[in-house]
Amino acid sequence: MRVKKIVLAAALTMVAAVTLAGCGKKSSSVTTTGSTSGNYQGVIEDGRYKTSKARGVNTAQNSNVNNLKAFEAGLTNVSKQVFSTKSYIFQEGQYLSSGTLENWLGRKTSSNPTGLNPAKGKSSDPNPVYIQQIEEQDYMQQSGDSLKLKGIVIGIGVNSEYTYQKTTGGPNYTKDISDAEVQKQGKLAAQKILKRLRERKSLKNVPIVIALFKQAPDDSLVGGTFFAYSKNDGDTISSWKSLNYKAVVLPKASDATSNEASDQSDNSNFTNFKTQIQSFFPNLSGVTAQAEYQNNSLSGMNITVTTQFYSQTEIQSFTEYILQAAKKYLPSGIPIEIKIESSNGIQAVVFRNSGSSSYQVHVFGAY
Amino acid sequence: MRVKKIVLAAALTMVAAVTLAGCGKKSSSVTTTGSTSGNYQGVIEDGRYKTSKARGVNTAQNSNVNNLKAFEAGLTNVSKQVFSTKSYIFQEGQYLSSGTLENWLGRKTSSNPTGLNPAKGKSSDPNPVYIQQIEEQDYMQQSGDSLKLKGIVIGIGVNSEYTYQKTTGGPNYTKDISDAEVQKQGKLAAQKILKRLRERKSLKNVPIVIALFKQAPDDSLVGGTFFAYSKNDGDTISSWKSLNYKAVVLPKASDATSNEASDQSDNSNFTNFKTQIQSFFPNLSGVTAQAEYQNNSLSGMNITVTTQFYSQTEIQSFTEYILQAAKKYLPSGIPIEIKIESSNGIQAVVFRNSGSSSYQVHVFGAY
Repeated sequence: MRVKKIVLAAALTMVAAVTLAGCGKKSSSVTTTGSTSGNYQGVIEDGRYKTSKARGVNTAQNSNVNNLKAFEAGLTNVSKQVFSTKSYIFQEGQYLSSGTLENWLGRKTSSNPTGLNPAKGKSSDPNPVYIQQIEEQDYMQQSGDSLKLKGIVIGIGVNSEYTYQKTTGGPNYTKDISDAEVQKQGKLAAQKILKRLRERKSLKNVPIVIALFKQAPDDSLVGGTFFAYSKNDGDTISSWKSLNYKAVVLPKASDATSNEASDQSDNSNFTNFKTQIQSFFPNLSGVTAQAEYQNNSLSGMNITVTTQFYSQTEIQSFTEYILQAAKKYLPSGIPIEIKIESSNGIQAVVFRNSGSSSYQVHVFGAY
Repeated sequence: MRVKKIVLAAALTMVAAVTLAGCGKKSSSVTTTGSTSGNYQGVIEDGRYKTSKARGVNTAQNSNVNNLKAFEAGLTNVSKQVFSTKSYIFQEGQYLSSGTLENWLGRKTSSNPTGLNPAKGKSSDPNPVYIQQIEEQDYMQQSGDSLKLKGIVIGIGVNSEYTYQKTTGGPNYTKDISDAEVQKQGKLAAQKILKRLRERKSLKNVPIVIALFKQAPDDSLVGGTFFAYSKNDGDTISSWKSLNYKAVVLPKASDATSNEASDQSDNSNFTNFKTQIQSFFPNLSGVTAQAEYQNNSLSGMNITVTTQFYSQTEIQSFTEYILQAAKKYLPSGIPIEIKIESSNGIQAVVFRNSGSSSYQVHVFGAY
């Protein structure tokens, strides 16, 4: 059982080293996936990816796939603030099983004493389900011939609205949950979870990070965002660090108002990009974006362009044109993804990854 | 009306120049899309892409989308051998209209004297439809303030099989069309088309390139390939240059045999890649490829990996792992595309474009 050394300077040398370790071994051993710059390596055991002990629980918990993806990608971003990608290896959660998490995500009843959500109360005015999803991530370092747990990160997704029926099969009612209540319920659950984890012998002494995520409504075109995290060495949470993320859809509806001057200029830049793109073909293209803000500055965009193509040469030309428009109208210094789609699915992609200064372009082909 | 200068050295300087010309102008003018290294710029007129006069004809002519994409991308590759991407601008065909092409693609009858396909003959043993699709590409250069036509490329897709019913609603019968017949019918049609084009005043003196493509069967998992082209200054085709392309699906069926040692080693490299990938998750991944051969050497691969993901972290880790496996097992020096898909569509892409020596990776995200 050998684990390759973790001290990695340049991403490229690293990748070469990992190739040898990560591929081809099939005996009982721990290796890693390798990683590109700024991303974690993942744990492979006996030639297979070490999947989560609660694999699939959160997939079932989210009817809005944006919430699922934003939660998991966002949690990894929180982790990167505490556990450097150069010094730590990522392992899917191994301490909380599906059964444990399903109990925790349920309502507290006599048969489910560990439920983090309140009992239902009366059907005409039920208590909301607050805690919607929980995810565990493990961060490892090499210790002799094996990997040793050096930190745990727990994400907690808290609902911002609750939908219920007063009678079975009756109409849907929705209760808004205030930001103050989201914060309160998230922090209560975090404290309970921290205590429960510290009761386990193997988790007595590792740093435990807990991060709180506000779920977007089920019909939202963007997912929720993380708003606070806490790093703990003991069993009581003493302080929280605020996170200031926001996800919005662009272009904004004409009646949407914002006090942020930066928001307005981002929206107008995007609208210029959209106008430029839409006039390209006689048939109109759909152009929308998810935009993320961190500390009130635009921190990333995912753009989807949908149109009808009549030939591969049209796809090639349109993609070149979109690249030029992106360079002209979209902000520099942040990750940007542009998916170019037809009714047959994705046809091309233009992107600039996090940490990169140049766009990459690929037109999907066929032989 | 201004067209920017065409002499372009480095792709990067070019792209910067084109940005200014290609974007933002809306008055009556001809500009170009800009281009990435090794690709043509396309013509934009009055702010819109100049679409083909026969837009959509070939979309309707191909029930196998691989034939459509392989035909159009392959035709552009033939064009690149004659008209350099640095000196010529690509324009979608402007001389053959939908009506003209639809007549040419029909059978020759008294009401359709220009049909390139033979009359049907008796229903019990009909003559095949040989000519399935035709595409025109125009190659332009700057001349004063406008673009001038400097060459035309015509692609002709010839069927390798013909499916028919003896009675309406009856069972399907299929006739194979031999390679010799494909060649003969393609060359006959090419000569007729060349003569017809030369009869037009505007096409009297431009070089006309005609390229012949053998269509793959409708149920093929790869498209057809170009097998010959001819560059002509007059109205009679005197000689053909052979093109040696082949498209195959990997992994090969176990009963498939090949005399080419290189094919076998390519297949075994791909099988190693596939095995490495498939064992990564407890649930099996589907891994298939389209491989293209030029002059009996592997010249490109499009790989599709399909699996079930349970989290964004699984997608990220799997993508990193695939990158390492690609570097280890897949050949260098040729374009490679790896689509990583789930039932929800594409999740990530790993690719190395033509002319590039390094892989690019993108995991599709959500905010």
